[in-house]
Amino acid sequence: MALDLHDYVASIPDYPEKGVIFRDISPLMGDGNAYKEATNQIVDYARNKGVEMIVGPEARGFIVGCPVAYELGIGFAPARKKGKLPRETIKATYDLEYGTSSLYLHKDAVKPGQRVLVTDDLLATGGTISATIDLVEELGGIVVGTAFIIELKDMHGRDKIKDYDMLSLMQY
Amino acid sequence: MALDLHDYVASIPDYPEKGVIFRDISPLMGDGNAYKEATNQIVDYARNKGVEMIVGPEARGFIVGCPVAYELGIGFAPARKKGKLPRETIKATYDLEYGTSSLYLHKDAVKPGQRVLVTDDLLATGGTISATIDLVEELGGIVVGTAFIIELKDMHGRDKIKDYDMLSLMQY
Repeated sequence: MALDLHDYVASIPDYPEKGVIFRDISPLMGDGNAYKEATNQIVDYARNKGVEMIVGPEARGFIVGCPVAYELGIGFAPARKKGKLPRETIKATYDLEYGTSSLYLHKDAVKPGQRVLVTDDLLATGGTISATIDLVEELGGIVVGTAFIIELKDMHGRDKIKDYDMLSLMQY
Repeated sequence: MALDLHDYVASIPDYPEKGVIFRDISPLMGDGNAYKEATNQIVDYARNKGVEMIVGPEARGFIVGCPVAYELGIGFAPARKKGKLPRETIKATYDLEYGTSSLYLHKDAVKPGQRVLVTDDLLATGGTISATIDLVEELGGIVVGTAFIIELKDMHGRDKIKDYDMLSLMQY
Protein backbone atom coordinates (compact mmCIF):
# COMPACT_ATOMS: atom_id res chain seq x y z
CA MET A 1 0.00 0.00 0.00
CA ALA A 2 1.30 3.43 -0.89
CA LEU A 3 2.46 5.67 1.89
CA ASP A 4 0.06 8.58 2.59
CA LEU A 5 2.03 11.75 3.38
CA HIS A 6 -0.97 13.17 5.28
CA ASP A 7 -0.26 10.62 8.00
CA TYR A 8 3.04 12.42 8.68
CA VAL A 9 1.66 15.94 9.25
CA ALA A 10 1.04 16.99 12.87
CA SER A 11 -1.90 19.38 13.18
CA ILE A 12 -1.60 21.64 16.21
CA PRO A 13 -4.74 23.62 17.14
CA ASP A 14 -4.41 27.23 18.35
CA TYR A 15 -0.73 27.55 17.41
CA PRO A 16 0.91 30.04 17.15
CA GLU A 17 -2.35 31.82 18.06
CA LYS A 18 -5.99 30.99 18.87
CA GLY A 19 -8.04 29.79 15.92
CA VAL A 20 -5.05 28.81 13.79
CA ILE A 21 -4.24 25.16 13.04
CA PHE A 22 -0.50 24.80 12.56
CA ARG A 23 0.57 22.10 10.09
CA ASP A 24 3.91 20.71 11.22
CA ILE A 25 5.94 18.59 8.80
CA SER A 26 8.52 17.49 11.36
CA PRO A 27 7.01 13.96 11.59
CA LEU A 28 7.34 13.71 7.80
CA MET A 29 11.00 14.72 7.72
CA GLY A 30 11.64 12.56 10.78
CA ASP A 31 10.51 9.41 8.95
CA GLY A 32 12.94 8.10 6.35
CA ASN A 33 10.29 6.65 4.04
CA ALA A 34 8.01 9.69 4.16
CA TYR A 35 10.90 12.14 3.68
CA LYS A 36 12.15 10.11 0.72
CA GLU A 37 8.70 9.90 -0.87
CA ALA A 38 8.02 13.65 -0.53
CA THR A 39 11.47 14.54 -1.82
CA ASN A 40 11.19 12.17 -4.77
CA GLN A 41 7.91 13.79 -5.86
CA ILE A 42 9.66 17.17 -5.95
CA VAL A 43 12.70 15.64 -7.69
CA ASP A 44 10.43 14.33 -10.49
CA TYR A 45 8.79 17.75 -10.84
CA ALA A 46 12.15 19.55 -10.92
CA ARG A 47 13.62 17.11 -13.43
CA ASN A 48 10.69 17.66 -15.79
CA LYS A 49 11.22 21.41 -15.55
CA GLY A 50 14.94 21.17 -16.31
CA VAL A 51 15.85 22.85 -13.04
CA GLU A 52 19.53 23.88 -12.71
CA MET A 53 19.53 25.51 -9.25
CA ILE A 54 17.36 25.48 -6.12
CA VAL A 55 16.73 28.44 -3.84
CA GLY A 56 14.86 28.13 -0.53
CA PRO A 57 14.13 30.55 2.32
CA GLU A 58 15.38 29.80 5.82
CA ALA A 59 15.04 27.51 7.50
CA ARG A 60 12.47 24.88 6.51
CA GLY A 61 12.97 25.71 2.83
CA PHE A 62 16.43 24.15 3.27
CA ILE A 63 14.95 20.88 4.53
CA VAL A 64 12.74 20.65 1.45
CA GLY A 65 15.19 21.90 -1.18
CA CYS A 66 18.56 20.45 -0.13
CA PRO A 67 17.88 16.75 -0.78
CA VAL A 68 16.29 17.66 -4.12
CA ALA A 69 19.46 19.55 -5.12
CA TYR A 70 21.61 16.63 -3.98
CA GLU A 71 19.61 14.04 -5.91
CA LEU A 72 19.67 16.12 -9.11
CA GLY A 73 23.37 16.95 -8.71
CA ILE A 74 22.68 20.70 -8.75
CA GLY A 75 23.37 23.53 -6.29
CA PHE A 76 21.29 24.98 -3.47
CA ALA A 77 21.29 28.63 -2.36
CA PRO A 78 19.73 29.77 0.92
CA ALA A 79 17.62 32.94 1.08
CA ARG A 80 18.29 34.25 4.58
CA LYS A 81 17.31 36.85 7.15
CA LYS A 82 19.45 39.92 7.83
CA GLY A 83 23.05 39.37 8.94
CA LYS A 84 23.27 35.68 8.01
CA LEU A 85 25.07 35.86 4.66
CA PRO A 86 28.72 36.98 4.83
CA ARG A 87 29.28 38.15 1.25
CA GLU A 88 27.64 40.75 -1.00
CA THR A 89 23.86 40.36 -1.05
CA ILE A 90 20.66 41.67 -2.58
CA LYS A 91 17.52 42.20 -0.51
CA ALA A 92 13.75 41.81 -0.93
CA THR A 93 11.20 43.12 1.56
CA TYR A 94 7.75 41.63 2.12
CA ASP A 95 4.68 42.36 4.24
CA LEU A 96 3.85 40.56 7.44
CA GLU A 97 0.58 40.83 9.36
CA TYR A 98 2.16 43.73 11.26
CA GLY A 99 5.14 45.43 9.63
CA THR A 100 7.60 43.99 7.12
CA SER A 101 10.48 41.53 6.93
CA SER A 102 13.36 41.08 4.51
CA LEU A 103 15.19 38.22 2.86
CA TYR A 104 18.69 38.32 1.40
CA LEU A 105 20.49 36.30 -1.26
CA HIS A 106 24.19 36.26 -2.17
CA LYS A 107 24.76 38.19 -5.40
CA ASP A 108 26.49 35.20 -6.99
CA ALA A 109 23.88 32.65 -5.85
CA VAL A 110 22.08 32.50 -9.19
CA LYS A 111 23.52 33.02 -12.68
CA PRO A 112 21.60 34.98 -15.35
CA GLY A 113 19.42 32.62 -17.37
CA GLN A 114 19.67 29.79 -14.84
CA ARG A 115 16.50 27.70 -14.42
CA VAL A 116 15.57 27.89 -10.76
CA LEU A 117 13.17 25.98 -8.51
CA VAL A 118 12.05 27.78 -5.36
CA THR A 119 11.15 25.51 -2.43
CA ASP A 120 9.54 25.92 0.97
CA ASP A 121 7.74 23.63 3.38
CA LEU A 122 4.45 25.50 3.36
CA LEU A 123 2.57 28.00 1.18
CA ALA A 124 0.39 30.32 3.28
CA THR A 125 -0.02 33.97 2.20
CA GLY A 126 2.88 33.61 -0.23
CA GLY A 127 4.86 36.54 1.16
CA THR A 128 8.07 34.64 1.80
CA ILE A 129 8.00 32.82 -1.51
CA SER A 130 7.26 36.01 -3.47
CA ALA A 131 10.26 37.71 -1.87
CA THR A 132 12.40 34.68 -2.75
CA ILE A 133 11.18 34.79 -6.36
CA ASP A 134 11.98 38.53 -6.51
CA LEU A 135 15.55 37.82 -5.38
CA VAL A 136 16.07 35.11 -8.00
CA GLU A 137 14.69 37.32 -10.77
CA GLU A 138 16.78 40.32 -9.70
CA LEU A 139 19.84 38.16 -10.37
CA GLY A 140 18.48 37.19 -13.80
CA GLY A 141 17.36 33.69 -12.83
CA ILE A 142 14.27 32.12 -14.41
CA VAL A 143 11.84 30.71 -11.86
CA VAL A 144 10.57 27.64 -13.70
CA GLY A 145 8.68 26.27 -10.72
CA THR A 146 7.82 26.45 -7.03
CA ALA A 147 7.38 23.45 -4.74
CA PHE A 148 5.83 23.05 -1.30
CA ILE A 149 5.07 20.13 0.97
CA ILE A 150 1.82 21.80 2.11
CA GLU A 151 -0.52 24.43 0.66
CA LEU A 152 -2.94 26.21 3.01
CA LYS A 153 -5.73 26.96 0.55
CA ASP A 154 -7.62 29.47 2.74
CA MET A 155 -4.56 31.74 2.76
CA HIS A 156 -4.70 32.17 -1.06
CA GLY A 157 -0.93 32.12 -1.54
CA ARG A 158 -1.49 30.49 -4.92
CA ASP A 159 -3.06 33.74 -6.20
CA LYS A 160 0.05 35.66 -5.24
CA ILE A 161 2.32 33.44 -7.35
CA LYS A 162 -0.17 32.71 -10.15
CA ASP A 163 2.38 33.62 -12.83
CA TYR A 164 4.54 30.67 -11.78
CA ASP A 165 4.14 26.95 -12.04
CA MET A 166 3.53 25.34 -8.69
CA LEU A 167 3.61 21.93 -7.02
CA SER A 168 2.09 21.29 -3.60
CA LEU A 169 2.16 17.75 -2.26
CA MET A 170 -0.75 18.24 0.18
CA GLN A 171 -3.57 20.77 0.48
CA TYR A 172 -5.41 21.78 3.66
CA MET B 1 41.14 14.97 -11.55
CA ALA B 2 39.39 14.83 -8.21
CA LEU B 3 37.41 17.84 -7.11
CA ASP B 4 39.05 19.75 -4.23
CA LEU B 5 36.42 20.96 -1.78
CA HIS B 6 38.76 23.72 -0.55
CA ASP B 7 38.18 25.48 -3.88
CA TYR B 8 34.53 25.94 -2.86
CA VAL B 9 35.07 27.68 0.48
CA ALA B 10 34.93 31.49 0.47
CA SER B 11 37.26 33.01 3.08
CA ILE B 12 36.07 36.43 4.24
CA PRO B 13 38.57 38.45 6.28
CA ASP B 14 37.35 40.49 9.28
CA TYR B 15 33.87 38.96 9.32
CA PRO B 16 31.83 39.05 11.49
CA GLU B 17 34.48 41.05 13.36
CA LYS B 18 38.05 42.33 12.90
CA GLY B 19 40.73 39.64 12.97
CA VAL B 20 38.34 36.75 12.23
CA ILE B 21 38.40 34.91 8.90
CA PHE B 22 34.91 33.61 8.16
CA ARG B 23 34.79 30.34 6.19
CA ASP B 24 31.67 30.37 4.05
CA ILE B 25 30.47 27.13 2.48
CA SER B 26 27.80 28.72 0.29
CA PRO B 27 29.94 28.30 -2.87
CA LEU B 28 30.22 24.59 -2.02
CA MET B 29 26.49 24.05 -1.58
CA GLY B 30 25.85 26.23 -4.64
CA ASP B 31 27.83 23.90 -6.88
CA GLY B 32 26.13 20.61 -7.71
CA ASN B 33 29.31 18.56 -7.99
CA ALA B 34 30.92 19.94 -4.82
CA TYR B 35 27.71 19.58 -2.79
CA LYS B 36 27.32 16.00 -4.01
CA GLU B 37 30.94 15.13 -3.22
CA ALA B 38 30.81 16.59 0.30
CA THR B 39 27.47 14.92 1.02
CA ASN B 40 28.66 11.56 -0.28
CA GLN B 41 31.67 11.61 2.05
CA ILE B 42 29.32 12.10 5.00
CA VAL B 43 26.93 9.44 3.64
CA ASP B 44 29.79 6.90 3.57
CA TYR B 45 30.77 7.80 7.14
CA ALA B 46 27.16 7.56 8.36
CA ARG B 47 26.59 4.24 6.59
CA ASN B 48 29.67 2.74 8.26
CA LYS B 49 28.37 3.89 11.65
CA GLY B 50 24.94 2.34 11.10
CA VAL B 51 23.24 5.71 11.57
CA GLU B 52 19.43 5.58 11.89
CA MET B 53 18.59 9.27 12.40
CA ILE B 54 20.24 12.63 11.75
CA VAL B 55 19.93 15.71 13.96
CA GLY B 56 21.30 19.12 12.95
CA PRO B 57 21.12 22.60 14.49
CA GLU B 58 19.54 25.45 12.55
CA ALA B 59 20.08 26.49 9.94
CA ARG B 60 23.24 25.34 8.13
CA GLY B 61 23.11 22.01 9.94
CA PHE B 62 20.02 21.31 7.83
CA ILE B 63 21.91 21.93 4.58
CA VAL B 64 24.55 19.40 5.63
CA GLY B 65 22.31 16.77 7.22
CA CYS B 66 19.19 16.70 5.05
CA PRO B 67 20.68 15.24 1.86
CA VAL B 68 22.53 12.63 3.95
CA ALA B 69 19.23 11.57 5.55
CA TYR B 70 17.56 11.44 2.14
CA GLU B 71 20.30 9.33 0.58
CA LEU B 72 20.30 6.86 3.49
CA GLY B 73 16.48 6.72 3.62
CA ILE B 74 16.42 7.83 7.26
CA GLY B 75 14.83 10.75 9.08
CA PHE B 76 16.13 14.22 9.92
CA ALA B 77 15.24 16.24 13.04
CA PRO B 78 16.05 19.95 13.34
CA ALA B 79 17.44 21.39 16.59
CA ARG B 80 16.02 24.91 16.68
CA LYS B 81 16.07 28.20 18.49
CA LYS B 82 13.29 29.24 20.87
CA GLY B 83 9.75 29.42 19.51
CA LYS B 84 10.40 27.53 16.27
CA LEU B 85 9.11 24.05 17.17
CA PRO B 86 5.33 23.80 17.65
CA ARG B 87 5.10 20.62 19.74
CA GLU B 88 6.48 19.51 23.11
CA THR B 89 10.24 20.13 23.30
CA ILE B 90 13.31 19.66 25.46
CA LYS B 91 15.93 22.38 25.82
CA ALA B 92 19.73 22.64 26.13
CA THR B 93 21.58 25.84 26.99
CA TYR B 94 25.14 26.65 25.94
CA ASP B 95 27.63 29.46 26.45
CA LEU B 96 28.34 32.16 23.92
CA GLU B 97 31.15 34.71 24.06
CA TYR B 98 28.76 36.96 25.98
CA GLY B 99 25.78 35.28 27.63
CA THR B 100 24.07 32.03 26.67
CA SER B 101 21.79 30.63 24.00
CA SER B 102 19.44 27.64 23.88
CA LEU B 103 18.49 24.96 21.39
CA TYR B 104 15.29 22.91 21.41
CA LEU B 105 14.34 19.51 20.03
CA HIS B 106 10.90 17.90 19.72
CA LYS B 107 10.44 15.26 22.43
CA ASP B 108 9.59 12.62 19.83
CA ALA B 109 12.45 13.53 17.48
CA VAL B 110 14.71 10.69 18.61
CA LYS B 111 13.74 7.25 19.92
CA PRO B 112 15.61 5.66 22.85
CA GLY B 113 18.48 3.54 21.55
CA GLN B 114 18.41 5.12 18.09
CA ARG B 115 21.85 5.57 16.47
CA VAL B 116 22.17 9.27 15.68
CA LEU B 117 24.55 11.35 13.57
CA VAL B 118 24.81 15.03 14.48
CA THR B 119 25.70 17.37 11.59
CA ASP B 120 26.68 21.00 11.21
CA ASP B 121 28.53 23.01 8.59
CA LEU B 122 31.33 24.16 10.85
CA LEU B 123 32.99 23.13 14.12
CA ALA B 124 34.33 26.17 16.00
CA THR B 125 34.16 26.22 19.84
CA GLY B 126 31.79 23.23 19.80
CA GLY B 127 29.08 24.95 21.85
CA THR B 128 26.26 24.41 19.39
CA ILE B 129 27.18 20.82 18.66
CA SER B 130 27.55 19.98 22.37
CA ALA B 131 24.07 21.33 23.05
CA THR B 132 22.72 19.28 20.15
CA ILE B 133 24.42 16.14 21.51
CA ASP B 134 22.91 16.85 24.95
CA LEU B 135 19.44 17.02 23.44
CA VAL B 136 19.85 13.72 21.59
CA GLU B 137 21.15 11.97 24.70
CA GLU B 138 18.39 13.36 26.91
CA LEU B 139 15.94 11.55 24.63
CA GLY B 140 17.95 8.33 24.92
CA GLY B 141 19.58 8.51 21.51
CA ILE B 142 23.13 7.21 20.96
CA VAL B 143 25.39 9.73 19.23
CA VAL B 144 27.51 7.43 17.06
CA GLY B 145 29.17 10.25 15.15
CA THR B 146 29.42 13.93 14.36
CA ALA B 147 30.11 15.37 10.91
CA PHE B 148 31.17 18.81 9.73
CA ILE B 149 32.16 20.33 6.41
CA ILE B 150 34.81 22.50 8.11
CA GLU B 151 36.76 22.30 11.36
CA LEU B 152 38.42 25.47 12.70
CA LYS B 153 41.32 23.90 14.56
CA ASP B 154 42.33 27.02 16.53
CA MET B 155 38.93 27.04 18.23
CA HIS B 156 39.53 23.59 19.80
CA GLY B 157 35.96 22.37 19.34
CA ARG B 158 37.33 18.85 18.90
CA ASP B 159 38.40 18.83 22.57
CA LYS B 160 34.86 19.65 23.63
CA ILE B 161 33.42 16.60 21.84
CA LYS B 162 36.37 14.25 22.35
CA ASP B 163 34.12 11.48 23.64
CA TYR B 164 32.46 11.24 20.24
CA ASP B 165 33.64 10.07 16.87
CA MET B 166 34.05 12.92 14.43
CA LEU B 167 34.41 13.57 10.71
CA SER B 168 35.48 16.93 9.30
CA LEU B 169 35.93 17.23 5.55
CA MET B 170 38.29 20.22 5.72
CA GLN B 171 40.46 21.75 8.43
CA TYR B 172 41.59 25.39 8.71
